[in-house]
Amino acid sequence: MQKSDKKVVSLFEKTNPGFQKITLTDSLRLKRGGYLKNPVLAYETWGELSKEKDNIIVILTGLSASSHVASSVTNPETGWWEGMVGKGKAFDTSKYYVVCINSLGSCFGSTGPASINEITGEPYRLTFPELTIDDMAKASKLLFDKLEIKSIHTLVGPSMGGMHSLALIIQNNNFVRNFIAISTARQSLPYSIAIRSLQREVIRKDPLWNNGYYSYDNPPLNGVRIARKLGMLSYRSADEWAQRFGRKKSAKTEITQNTFGIENTGFEFEIESYLEHLAIKFQNVFDANSYLYLSRSIDWFDLVDYGSSPNEILGQTGLSNALVLGVESDTLFPVSQQKEIAEYLASGTTKVAYKSLDCLQGHDSFLVDIETFSREIKCFLENL
Amino acid sequence: MQKSDKKVVSLFEKTNPGFQKITLTDSLRLKRGGYLKNPVLAYETWGELSKEKDNIIVILTGLSASSHVASSVTNPETGWWEGMVGKGKAFDTSKYYVVCINSLGSCFGSTGPASINEITGEPYRLTFPELTIDDMAKASKLLFDKLEIKSIHTLVGPSMGGMHSLALIIQNNNFVRNFIAISTARQSLPYSIAIRSLQREVIRKDPLWNNGYYSYDNPPLNGVRIARKLGMLSYRSADEWAQRFGRKKSAKTEITQNTFGIENTGFEFEIESYLEHLAIKFQNVFDANSYLYLSRSIDWFDLVDYGSSPNEILGQTGLSNALVLGVESDTLFPVSQQKEIAEYLASGTTKVAYKSLDCLQGHDSFLVDIETFSREIKCFLENL
Repeated sequence: MQKSDKKVVSLFEKTNPGFQKITLTDSLRLKRGGYLKNPVLAYETWGELSKEKDNIIVILTGLSASSHVASSVTNPETGWWEGMVGKGKAFDTSKYYVVCINSLGSCFGSTGPASINEITGEPYRLTFPELTIDDMAKASKLLFDKLEIKSIHTLVGPSMGGMHSLALIIQNNNFVRNFIAISTARQSLPYSIAIRSLQREVIRKDPLWNNGYYSYDNPPLNGVRIARKLGMLSYRSADEWAQRFGRKKSAKTEITQNTFGIENTGFEFEIESYLEHLAIKFQNVFDANSYLYLSRSIDWFDLVDYGSSPNEILGQTGLSNALVLGVESDTLFPVSQQKEIAEYLASGTTKVAYKSLDCLQGHDSFLVDIETFSREIKCFLENL
Repeated sequence: MQKSDKKVVSLFEKTNPGFQKITLTDSLRLKRGGYLKNPVLAYETWGELSKEKDNIIVILTGLSASSHVASSVTNPETGWWEGMVGKGKAFDTSKYYVVCINSLGSCFGSTGPASINEITGEPYRLTFPELTIDDMAKASKLLFDKLEIKSIHTLVGPSMGGMHSLALIIQNNNFVRNFIAISTARQSLPYSIAIRSLQREVIRKDPLWNNGYYSYDNPPLNGVRIARKLGMLSYRSADEWAQRFGRKKSAKTEITQNTFGIENTGFEFEIESYLEHLAIKFQNVFDANSYLYLSRSIDWFDLVDYGSSPNEILGQTGLSNALVLGVESDTLFPVSQQKEIAEYLASGTTKVAYKSLDCLQGHDSFLVDIETFSREIKCFLENL
């Protein structure tokens, strides 16, 4: 099994040439126990670092993203936030030095459950220590230390990346100067916990998951694919789909791909085919165990772990400015949670702008409604 | 396999003594093709039928309910709408004769995929013809004919039962005098189709499902349980769970039931244990294939199949009065869909009352917020 494991780990690296890797430390102790030997983070950069090192924008990602936020010379493939990062774009690479990190625990170059444990020579799988958002932030800070980054101009955190950002800001007062929080939360609420819990259960119940010891040549694709579809249900919005798909049917070829009970069980409606297409893309690149770890870390995140009250914790970060963006159609990280963050941040000396945006695409709006998000972010950065 | 099939079919009947069964006809042809030989519907009644047979209230159920809407002498077990049906309750059985039908295709006494096909002597399973809401309504009308019911005082349809009701009303103008529609729709929209599609996929991917040919002694419980949890996500509301569960943890005993990766994969939060408990109850009583058929029938339902425009179809039903109730926190059948039904019904001679209720429990509010629903329904019935 080890042979195929290594093959898969290197497959991503072979086909994604853009990122760099740094070993953070000899040994990283994690919050809930256990440690990682020689943990690595993958990251990519765009633009030029100024002599004063004062133009650094750091992007921390959502659960499923790699560090490939935008195309580059080394990796011309379109990035997951291509419309936002580049020359003249909201995160203007002719002005800023943009860094994006693949979070600790992920499977796109950083150390995670699919990585080889140097001590055993085998992939960690479920022997990977329990991962928290706090650990991600600690690892990211070690990366900045290695890169001799002493101060971040603007930290950007959508979704899980927002939690990752909050942890980083709280752990390192005065390290981050400005913060853009997007559709994130200071703690997970039961509805979002339930959605993620179900996604994990679907993966665990896939027989190919095999208690985490699946073959990397024959991983639990059904589990990961269905988990992803369930995720999509929480990332988009009912109104968007009503407008976009209505009751449109799939092309006949897609219906007849199923070998039995076609009409009853196939993907007859376009919404079903749409989800299937997107989820198949995902199942082919994302490590099942990594998904379990990252997903659970979001459930666990809670600002109260850092102190007595959110006001006290977020009022004393040393942040100069913050922009908190929420989306009204977001059911996973509702605007009420964005407002909360804004209020807590504003209880200290941070100058806070809060906007509840009327985008249609739910939690994923920041990935889709580039026009709206560009406008808000440009306006924020220009007025610093 | 046949032996155990029969055992299961009779198990429900043994443990649920309250309902009666009637064979509807020799052969029932279904809308999308195929037919059922000697189809049966299960039903229960409460109260006394008046001499004039003018006090009949019929309740058509949601996807997962049996005909056991309330306790009775023959079956003292609490029914699924116990708070609504009984002496002095909203559906007052000292005044009305209440009939509840287990829909065609279900697994609680009516003919469905788990029933024995008389022609083969084996359960139908996936040889059950494709089922539509239209077929359910046709079967229910045959039941009324057998019972010599010529007119329904008030027809009540929550959720799928509302679609079933709409079909019955449209197929039989002037048969129903008054109609109470609760959290239903004139057609399924892509968000709800996606949720149901995923539930079906989870069941089909359970290896025990075995292309529909599972052993009734060892059915695909994981699939059905997870599908039910997914359903629950769409039946309740995020705000309800935030208030009710917040970030409460499960009792330790529940966490340690899992044999590995406890903290990472177990049911650590109370919301997770809550869903598990409810879904286990469900997995033990509901037939997997029946779930697939009923679920798909909801996707397919579309009023436009009955004529050129919803206005034309629902404006000419002969209904005297209608009460249309929606719930603001319902994401599965949103209030916009209730308003639509009310407007279409009102385009003819029907006197229509529409209420958007401020209940917290989402789509399931009609099952939980008995006080609010009782008040609205009592008020409607008293003013007829």
